Amino acid sequence: MAAQLYKTENGRLFHAGAVAIITVGLPARGKTHVSRSLCRYMRWMGVSTKVFSVGNYRRERLRTIPEEYFDPNNKAAFAARIRIADDCLDDLIEWLQHGGGQVAIYDGNNVTEERRREIHDKLVNQDIHPLFIESICNKPEIVLANIRSVKISSPDYVGWEPEEAVKDYTKRIEQHKINYETIADLSLPFVKLMNVGEQLIVNNVQGYLQSRVVYYLMNLHNRPRTIYFARAGESLNPNLYKVDAELSPEGRQYAENLKNFMIAYREKKRTEANNSEDQERPLSIWTSTRKKSRQSALPFAEAGFPVRQHSVLTQLNPGEVDGLTPEEIKQKFPEEVARARQDPYRHRYPRAESYHDLAIRLESIIMELEREKNDVLIIAHDTVLRCLYAYLFDRPESEIPTISIPRPFLVEITPTAYGCKETRMEITPESCV
Amino acid sequence: MAAQLYKTENGRLFHAGAVAIITVGLPARGKTHVSRSLCRYMRWMGVSTKVFSVGNYRRERLRTIPEEYFDPNNKAAFAARIRIADDCLDDLIEWLQHGGGQVAIYDGNNVTEERRREIHDKLVNQDIHPLFIESICNKPEIVLANIRSVKISSPDYVGWEPEEAVKDYTKRIEQHKINYETIADLSLPFVKLMNVGEQLIVNNVQGYLQSRVVYYLMNLHNRPRTIYFARAGESLNPNLYKVDAELSPEGRQYAENLKNFMIAYREKKRTEANNSEDQERPLSIWTSTRKKSRQSALPFAEAGFPVRQHSVLTQLNPGEVDGLTPEEIKQKFPEEVARARQDPYRHRYPRAESYHDLAIRLESIIMELEREKNDVLIIAHDTVLRCLYAYLFDRPESEIPTISIPRPFLVEITPTAYGCKETRMEITPESCV
Repeated sequence: MAAQLYKTENGRLFHAGAVAIITVGLPARGKTHVSRSLCRYMRWMGVSTKVFSVGNYRRERLRTIPEEYFDPNNKAAFAARIRIADDCLDDLIEWLQHGGGQVAIYDGNNVTEERRREIHDKLVNQDIHPLFIESICNKPEIVLANIRSVKISSPDYVGWEPEEAVKDYTKRIEQHKINYETIADLSLPFVKLMNVGEQLIVNNVQGYLQSRVVYYLMNLHNRPRTIYFARAGESLNPNLYKVDAELSPEGRQYAENLKNFMIAYREKKRTEANNSEDQERPLSIWTSTRKKSRQSALPFAEAGFPVRQHSVLTQLNPGEVDGLTPEEIKQKFPEEVARARQDPYRHRYPRAESYHDLAIRLESIIMELEREKNDVLIIAHDTVLRCLYAYLFDRPESEIPTISIPRPFLVEITPTAYGCKETRMEITPESCV
Repeated sequence: MAAQLYKTENGRLFHAGAVAIITVGLPARGKTHVSRSLCRYMRWMGVSTKVFSVGNYRRERLRTIPEEYFDPNNKAAFAARIRIADDCLDDLIEWLQHGGGQVAIYDGNNVTEERRREIHDKLVNQDIHPLFIESICNKPEIVLANIRSVKISSPDYVGWEPEEAVKDYTKRIEQHKINYETIADLSLPFVKLMNVGEQLIVNNVQGYLQSRVVYYLMNLHNRPRTIYFARAGESLNPNLYKVDAELSPEGRQYAENLKNFMIAYREKKRTEANNSEDQERPLSIWTSTRKKSRQSALPFAEAGFPVRQHSVLTQLNPGEVDGLTPEEIKQKFPEEVARARQDPYRHRYPRAESYHDLAIRLESIIMELEREKNDVLIIAHDTVLRCLYAYLFDRPESEIPTISIPRPFLVEITPTAYGCKETRMEITPESCV
C-alpha cells in the first residue's frame, strides 16, 4: 500500500479500466506465490488489488476434501469444483464492478483451453480486461522444492505429517496433469512464465497496469531465501542528519555483537537444518552510503561477507527539523506539527522528505530485493526499514510511520507463497556466543 | 533527462553495472526507432545512455555507399562492413568503461548467430552485460510503412526521389535476408519483439535496468501518429491555483478557436495527403481534471471528439506561492527564490511540487502516450506540457522550467524513427476558417 504512485480519489487509475489476472498451471508451479506477490506490489503502487483464491473458497465450503475431489473422471466432483470456481469468479467480477477494485487476481489452476475461453468471454462481456499468467516449470528440483514448501505454508496441510502431505499433493498434481493444456490460443492476452524468471512469453498484452505486471514478474523468483533487517548502530551525533557522524563506541560494540550474533545464529540454523532440504545460501550485507550504516557492516566485511552500499537506502531526510527536539519542532513549526499529525505518511517538513517520497525512492531496492537469490541483511535507518517492512508484509501506508523496528533486534523475514513470516531476536553480547 | 528517478553522484546506478543493448533484425523492422526511443526513456529516468549506430559510423566514413556494399557474397565489402561495426563497438565499450556511460545501445543488424556470439563474448569479457533485442515483423504492411517512413527520416536518403529510395532500401533488405538467422541460442539474454508490441519473448534476462527496458518495450509501437499540444484557455482567476476557476470569456473564445483551427487544419492535411499512404487517424483529446483544461475541450466534445480526463495532467502545485506576484514571492520567501535560481528543476517552494515531482507523476501518462495509436491533442497547463515536451524531444532536465509553449499556439509533434519533429502554428480566429 505504500508507494501510492498513482493514488486517485476513488482508488481507480484513470481509465486503465478493471483488470482480472487469471493464473494457469499445475499445482506447485508457484501460482499462489505469484498471485500474492503481485497483489502486494500493486497495492504498494496504490492500486486497489485483491486475490480471489479458488482454493480458499473450496476450504471455506468443504471442511475436508473428499477422496475423489480432484479426480478428473468423476463428473460429480468436477461439477462441484466448477460451482465453487464460478462463485469465486462471480465475486471477483462483483468486486471489480461495484466494490472499488481495479485489479483482481483469480488464483486457480484453469488448466483447460475451454475453461480459459469461458472465463475470458465472461470477463470481456463485463468490460473487464483479462490477463492470463501461466506458470510452467520443467525443472523437477524446483517443483519438488515447491511441493515441500507447501507442507510449511499451505492451509490444506495444517497438522499433516510432512510425508503424507507431500504424497497427497503429488497425487493432486498428477490428477491435474491429465487435462492440462498449455495456453495455445494466441488471441488471449497472456504471459507464460518459464521456471519463474528464466523465460517469459508475453502475448497480446495491452495496457499500463498490465505492463507493470509483466515488469514485476520479470523480477520475481520463488526460491527459498531469508531477509534480515537490523538497525544501524548509534552514531556520535545521533540527532543530527547533516553531519553524517561516525559510530559511537557503543555503536561499534553493537556492530560487533550483530556480526557475532548473526554468525552464531546461522551456524545454529545450519546444524538444525542438517537433514532438511533448506540449503545454506550465502549472506550479503546491504547498507546505505551513510557512515553509521557502513560502519555497522564493517565487522561483517572483516569476516569476509560481501557488503554493498546503496545510496537509495539513505534515511528519510528530516529537512529543517534536523537536530531539533520534539519540543523545539513544536515551537518552531506549530502548523507543520498539526499537518504531520493529520497525514504522517505524506507530510513533509520544510525541505524534508515524506515517507511517501522515501517509499518511491525505494522502488529500485524493492525490485533488487525481489531478484536477490542469496540471503540479505539490510543494515539501515528505521525510516527505511519501516517502508521495506510495509512492502514485504503488505501493511497499509498509514501504519508505516509507526512500525517498530527497534535496536538491538534482528528481524528475520522468510517469504513463503502465503506471505512473509517474521522472527525477532534480541542481540545481546551474551546471546552471541 | 527529466525524471531522474535514480540519479546518483557519478551518473551510474548502484551496482546495476554497465549494460549493452544490441539490436538484431532486418532493415525496416523498427530497430532505430526502438534504439532512439529506449535511449530517450532511459535518459528520462536519469540513466546515462547513448546510441552507437553502425549506420552513422558508416555514413561518417563513406560519403556514398558503393554499389556492392551490402552484397553478402562480396568478401571485401563484408570486411569493410565488419571493420566499421567493430570500431563502433569498441567506442561503445570505451564509453561504458571510461566515459561515464551506463547503458549503451548498439544499433545495427547483427543478423548472424556467429556475429552475435562474437559481440556477446567481447562484452562479457569486459564485464558488460549484453541484452539482445531482435525486432521481427511478419506483417508486410508494417514493413512497407517502415520502408516508406525511411524516405522521410533516414539520413541515407536525403535528397533522393522517394521511389528510388524505396527501391534501393528494398534491395538492401533482400541482401540482408540471405544471411539472416533469428536468435536461437537460449544462453543469450534476449528479447524478441514480434510486430512491435504484439508478442514479446523474454529469455534469460536479468537485472533491474534490463527489466525496465522490457517494460518500456511492451508499451512501444512505431505506427505513424501525431501528438498535439495546446495550452488551456485563460481562466477567470489565472493567478490562483487553489480556486480552480472557470474559463474567462476570452478563454471560451480561445477554446472555440482551437477547435475550429484543429478541424480546419486536419481537413487541409487530409486533402493534401489524398494520394499518400499517411492514413487519417481518429483524434482524442486529453485534459487534466482542472476546470480550465476540461472546459477548453468542451467545443471538441460538442463536435463529437472523445475527451478523456487524466488527473495526473494537473499542473504543478505552486504551494504557498500560489497567487503571489514575483515581487511578493521575493519579499515573502527571499531564501527560496535564491534556491529556486540555483536548481529550478528540483526546487520546491513550501508545500509545492518541483518540476522533478511533476515529471515523476507524469510517468504513467508517458507510457500511455507511447501506447496510444490514435492522434492525441493534450490540452494542459504549461508546466505539464514542458515536461512532456522534454521527454519527447530528449531535452535536459535543466531546460524544462524554461521551455516555451505559449498560448495561442498549436504544437504539432510527429514521432519518427530518428526523433520527433515539431511544427508550431498560431491559433487566430482568422486562421480557423
